[in-house]
Amino acid sequence: MSLRGAAAIVGIGDTAVGKLPGWTATGLTVEAARLALADAALDKSAIDGLVTCDSMVEPHMYHAELIAQTMRIRPRWCMTLSAGGATNFAAVHHAAAAIATGQCTTVLIVSADVLRTGLTPERAQAQMSSTGDPDFEAPYGLPVPGSYALVARAHMHAYGTTAEQLARVAVTTRAHAALNPAAEKRTPITVDDVLASRMIADPLHLLDCSLVSDGGSAVIVTAAERARDFPHPPVLLLGAGEGRSHEHVSQAPSLVTSAARESGRRAYDMARLGPADVDFAELYDCFTPVVLVELEDLGFCPKGEGGPFVADGHTALGGSLPTNTHGGLLSHAHPGNPGSMFALTEAVRQLRGDAGERQVRRAEIGLVHGQGGILSSHCTLVLGREVARS
Amino acid sequence: MSLRGAAAIVGIGDTAVGKLPGWTATGLTVEAARLALADAALDKSAIDGLVTCDSMVEPHMYHAELIAQTMRIRPRWCMTLSAGGATNFAAVHHAAAAIATGQCTTVLIVSADVLRTGLTPERAQAQMSSTGDPDFEAPYGLPVPGSYALVARAHMHAYGTTAEQLARVAVTTRAHAALNPAAEKRTPITVDDVLASRMIADPLHLLDCSLVSDGGSAVIVTAAERARDFPHPPVLLLGAGEGRSHEHVSQAPSLVTSAARESGRRAYDMARLGPADVDFAELYDCFTPVVLVELEDLGFCPKGEGGPFVADGHTALGGSLPTNTHGGLLSHAHPGNPGSMFALTEAVRQLRGDAGERQVRRAEIGLVHGQGGILSSHCTLVLGREVARS
Repeated sequence: MSLRGAAAIVGIGDTAVGKLPGWTATGLTVEAARLALADAALDKSAIDGLVTCDSMVEPHMYHAELIAQTMRIRPRWCMTLSAGGATNFAAVHHAAAAIATGQCTTVLIVSADVLRTGLTPERAQAQMSSTGDPDFEAPYGLPVPGSYALVARAHMHAYGTTAEQLARVAVTTRAHAALNPAAEKRTPITVDDVLASRMIADPLHLLDCSLVSDGGSAVIVTAAERARDFPHPPVLLLGAGEGRSHEHVSQAPSLVTSAARESGRRAYDMARLGPADVDFAELYDCFTPVVLVELEDLGFCPKGEGGPFVADGHTALGGSLPTNTHGGLLSHAHPGNPGSMFALTEAVRQLRGDAGERQVRRAEIGLVHGQGGILSSHCTLVLGREVARS
Repeated sequence: MSLRGAAAIVGIGDTAVGKLPGWTATGLTVEAARLALADAALDKSAIDGLVTCDSMVEPHMYHAELIAQTMRIRPRWCMTLSAGGATNFAAVHHAAAAIATGQCTTVLIVSADVLRTGLTPERAQAQMSSTGDPDFEAPYGLPVPGSYALVARAHMHAYGTTAEQLARVAVTTRAHAALNPAAEKRTPITVDDVLASRMIADPLHLLDCSLVSDGGSAVIVTAAERARDFPHPPVLLLGAGEGRSHEHVSQAPSLVTSAARESGRRAYDMARLGPADVDFAELYDCFTPVVLVELEDLGFCPKGEGGPFVADGHTALGGSLPTNTHGGLLSHAHPGNPGSMFALTEAVRQLRGDAGERQVRRAEIGLVHGQGGILSSHCTLVLGREVARS
């Protein structure tokens, strides 16, 4: 059986983002869930499936069970995931499979964290050091920004990509955030601002790097045939695909080509659609070079031409592929694992036609893509308005 | 669609257990995978789905991706789980759904750890303290054995269960381990031995507690229609069910009744079978009282009669329900999260008729059950020989 069109997103909830003193990660998780339930006009007792993403600040072995206990719900299908930026989208994929095979009917996917106020330097360091290859990276202290700097440098070397083109990713994304009242950073920036910002890991400047935030987000997934019983127009899952390559950057077969190729192809194949059908994209933008690799590997431009594609304005609102319309991890918020959830709720908002000043015109098909582990772990979703299904 | 009979286990692998100096958790994980691949006569390149259980000694945010990198495989469907004793069985459930919905064809589920040689006191304490309720347990330092002691004491209070009956769980399990060349503890013990062993958390003596081991285990799951192409008779997944209640013991609605009732009912319903159809059971036995609660909640005896049921010999080989035929966590091995995997590989061995001296006669239907988080998170599987499917 195919999962194409089998499941739909019927509720979304985003908490405030930024610096939120007084909130715990658990509290923000429940708050995001509450908002999504309200959006779907659903009582929490209807939730019989639950996926959470473990918190970095308040890690818990039974995280999903902890959230269920706190919410006083007893889901019959329950999962804690923690694999970075692809996790939340893979959760949608898993939820659709669970619903289609009768394991549950209504899945809450929720993720929140308090990285900005709660992450101690000790825990941040432990987290960073636990992700490096124990033989080839950890001994040399390769940090996450350093890994992505290698990606940027490799892309420059292979394709002539420039620091100005990378900066254009940040500039375009900030322009979108300026139209999003919920975004953390809304003051427009220029290429010169990016290039003049502090160097973090050559060639990545501060404004090439995503934010560190508090915040959380949730979606509710149910069977497509039930989805019309909710207040908002349902958003259908048309395609989903995952892809993996290496886990550590030192083991990568290539620094400029990723398994987004495979996750994208699988998602397109399931949806029976291709890049030309996509009206807008919400891509993973932990650092600016990642967006270029994704644009290329997901087929929106030829390999190596991500830089010119962005510089030519294609990813801006009004361009051929408005990208990261809410402001992305670069300018909306990045509370760690939960960050990519905002891309998903934004895609739903766009497909509902509820995106206000930043609404993409004729938004019928949207693509969201997440990656984790320095381009190692990918998940792509193709979402559509119900009208787009036939 | 129902998952009944949709998937089958076609390969199993258990590493050595006990104290294994020189092994890392990653190394043992790959070793278990290698053994399961050899058992299925399968090349690793056939694996397109992977579930791992995160290591406590070598935790990694992208654990499944790390194992994939180490094995040089690129699964298209990949998941890291970490929710204790129910995890490995839930993984079988998730794998069956992924296979049935076309996400992948051949799933490796693998889990290993080096708790015995690798767990530092600091990490053990961090792990223990992170599982307690932050408001009602952690401040008082309630450790895991203490939580299960509360379960035992509540069962004694409610049903007149005795320390001798608890001890019989350990004695019976050890008798089975004595017939298993792979088990860590093979010297038979008596009820007096258990009662004379050191008190850990009243009323639990040392021999009421499971082992702390190194070791790992793996299974390979594929679609039932492909399962005859492998060297061993396939073992079909007939039923699967999950159940959750509280996460912390201080929040438990009851200390003597668990969500095993729900996970069991769901698994029986899917399998269209009941407790009377089950020829043997592999239950979660981190501490002896858990086995009594599970026997009752899974319907093998009336509520409160777990103690007499065990004392009367029903769970011994030759009894009405041979239980933990390999020696369980109490006497075979307990390397943390991977521990319950051995129950699964034992069930497969019994259903293949390959269990040697401890073979259950006419083993056609087996039940495996795991729980985590002090009786909060449960998963039940009903497995059958292919002949039992019709």
